[in-house]
Amino acid sequence: MIACVFDGRDVRVDQNHPEPQTPPGEVRVAVRLAGVCQTDLEIVKGYMDFRGVLGHEFVGTALEGEMEGRRVVGGINCVCGECDMCRRGLPTHCRQRTTLGIDRRDGAFAERLALPEANLVLVPDEVPDRAAVFAEPLAAAIQITRQVDLAPEQHIVILGDGRLGQLVARVLEAQGLAPTVVGKSEPKLALLRDLGLETVTADDAQPNKAADVVVEATGTADGLAMALWLVRPRGTIVLKSTVADTAGLNLAPLVVDEVTVVGSRCGPMDAAVALLAEADLALEPLITAEVPLTEADAALRAAADPEAIKVLIRP
Amino acid sequence: MIACVFDGRDVRVDQNHPEPQTPPGEVRVAVRLAGVCQTDLEIVKGYMDFRGVLGHEFVGTALEGEMEGRRVVGGINCVCGECDMCRRGLPTHCRQRTTLGIDRRDGAFAERLALPEANLVLVPDEVPDRAAVFAEPLAAAIQITRQVDLAPEQHIVILGDGRLGQLVARVLEAQGLAPTVVGKSEPKLALLRDLGLETVTADDAQPNKAADVVVEATGTADGLAMALWLVRPRGTIVLKSTVADTAGLNLAPLVVDEVTVVGSRCGPMDAAVALLAEADLALEPLITAEVPLTEADAALRAAADPEAIKVLIRP
Repeated sequence: MIACVFDGRDVRVDQNHPEPQTPPGEVRVAVRLAGVCQTDLEIVKGYMDFRGVLGHEFVGTALEGEMEGRRVVGGINCVCGECDMCRRGLPTHCRQRTTLGIDRRDGAFAERLALPEANLVLVPDEVPDRAAVFAEPLAAAIQITRQVDLAPEQHIVILGDGRLGQLVARVLEAQGLAPTVVGKSEPKLALLRDLGLETVTADDAQPNKAADVVVEATGTADGLAMALWLVRPRGTIVLKSTVADTAGLNLAPLVVDEVTVVGSRCGPMDAAVALLAEADLALEPLITAEVPLTEADAALRAAADPEAIKVLIRP
Repeated sequence: MIACVFDGRDVRVDQNHPEPQTPPGEVRVAVRLAGVCQTDLEIVKGYMDFRGVLGHEFVGTALEGEMEGRRVVGGINCVCGECDMCRRGLPTHCRQRTTLGIDRRDGAFAERLALPEANLVLVPDEVPDRAAVFAEPLAAAIQITRQVDLAPEQHIVILGDGRLGQLVARVLEAQGLAPTVVGKSEPKLALLRDLGLETVTADDAQPNKAADVVVEATGTADGLAMALWLVRPRGTIVLKSTVADTAGLNLAPLVVDEVTVVGSRCGPMDAAVALLAEADLALEPLITAEVPLTEADAALRAAADPEAIKVLIRP
């Protein structure tokens, strides 16, 4: 099959990649549409030391099992069910997990992928592929609301107007919250103003330590330092960016201001699909391009363009 | 009066330092005994850009006001009472605060200091000076228990066997908790074993991501990186070290493991004095030396010795 592979140095499209294996409990899924994430761009810079088929955002058609022939999205963490984290009810933190396109498991930039059947979530008919493909990053945005108490009277700042910042803004807005988004791209900030949200350009943001909550979604290593300029004493920073780089960071403000920093990663896929079915999240304007799988390497380059938002890959 | 002054470059003992001024609401205190803290050592390396009389840990005798003639310790944050933080009930985060010996207010390595009368806490007769002088860092240790829920069944690790780590261990032990202390100094770890606590040398500590809570009290910029090796997914790190240095830190583990980091600074002085009166905290073995104020510069050098714990200064 055709697949986009990272060998530790280069990204290439392999025309004869082996079909994914399916151990007991796993099923194959024909990928209908996949999305390029900042994490993919970090992986090709060395993050996670990954080798194999890239990609973890997808909508596809189940080829086997109970959902055979139906459209599905899938949780990306494949877990043992037996370690201390699984037993504690924290399967996304399974000590033995593999992760689709991120950690020792071939990913979604391919004609077909394999996942545990238990990871799959049916996509309702009213959710088109070009919306369903956002389920995984949307779940990551929803995860914020599961970890931190947010309320309409709070001053909430989202730092970052890119792929993830746009989705976080939509999730919070759908919950009746009124975040302000700080970003660097005028066209991207304009998309957020179209939703009725306040925006500020990064150059105009005042380091006034006034925000109750800052969601850091910059995709850069220095996002936390910026968040510490914006958050109030005893405020909360939600840290979303996973990057390969190391940042030079002075942690004293975190201690002096007694800030709480909450790391936040994958979220509930079922809640993401439910939100896609319920709310109009205005996702179409986020799609910069749809590229054939045979040109997936070009799709990754396109996604690295500072003005790109979501680049999709179509097998 | 005699005072130990930092001019931005050098520490010197001034034999003719001006007496502290007392605006309305403030009283003078004759310092009986002061303690050298890691923060003092950071200040002389440039932290907080402080100029003036050093020192913020003390026990003294009130020279004026309701407590005249009685022994007191004092909260170090001097606040406006009117800003958003004060009105929110977070006076230690007052936007206009000055801080004794740390931020635009002369400190305790002097014959006399001035503080708002409201900051003073009476010291019961049964608490000797050499215990009362620990009230401020003890309050900082108690603060941890006000910010994070701790329970006996948790695996709690204290990272650091120095000045603050020793006090954190004693506070948690006094609350019926059983922390394990990771440190670099065999004699310091032996003091903790004398209290019945488990200890591990830093070289033997396994990066096994097993601790529910890690209290970072290393006094170094790379303490957070070490804490991230030890804390479990969804665990909590309490960050106590305020240092002038910048650390090169890869934040990805914080996000991937969804760790919560809580910055923690000053604590409740009244609770510290109450604990000193109630519990035998075995503080005497922590006192490395008592040095006359006239040799306060030598006291700071002595406190910088890796085997030193608490160096006291006697006016």
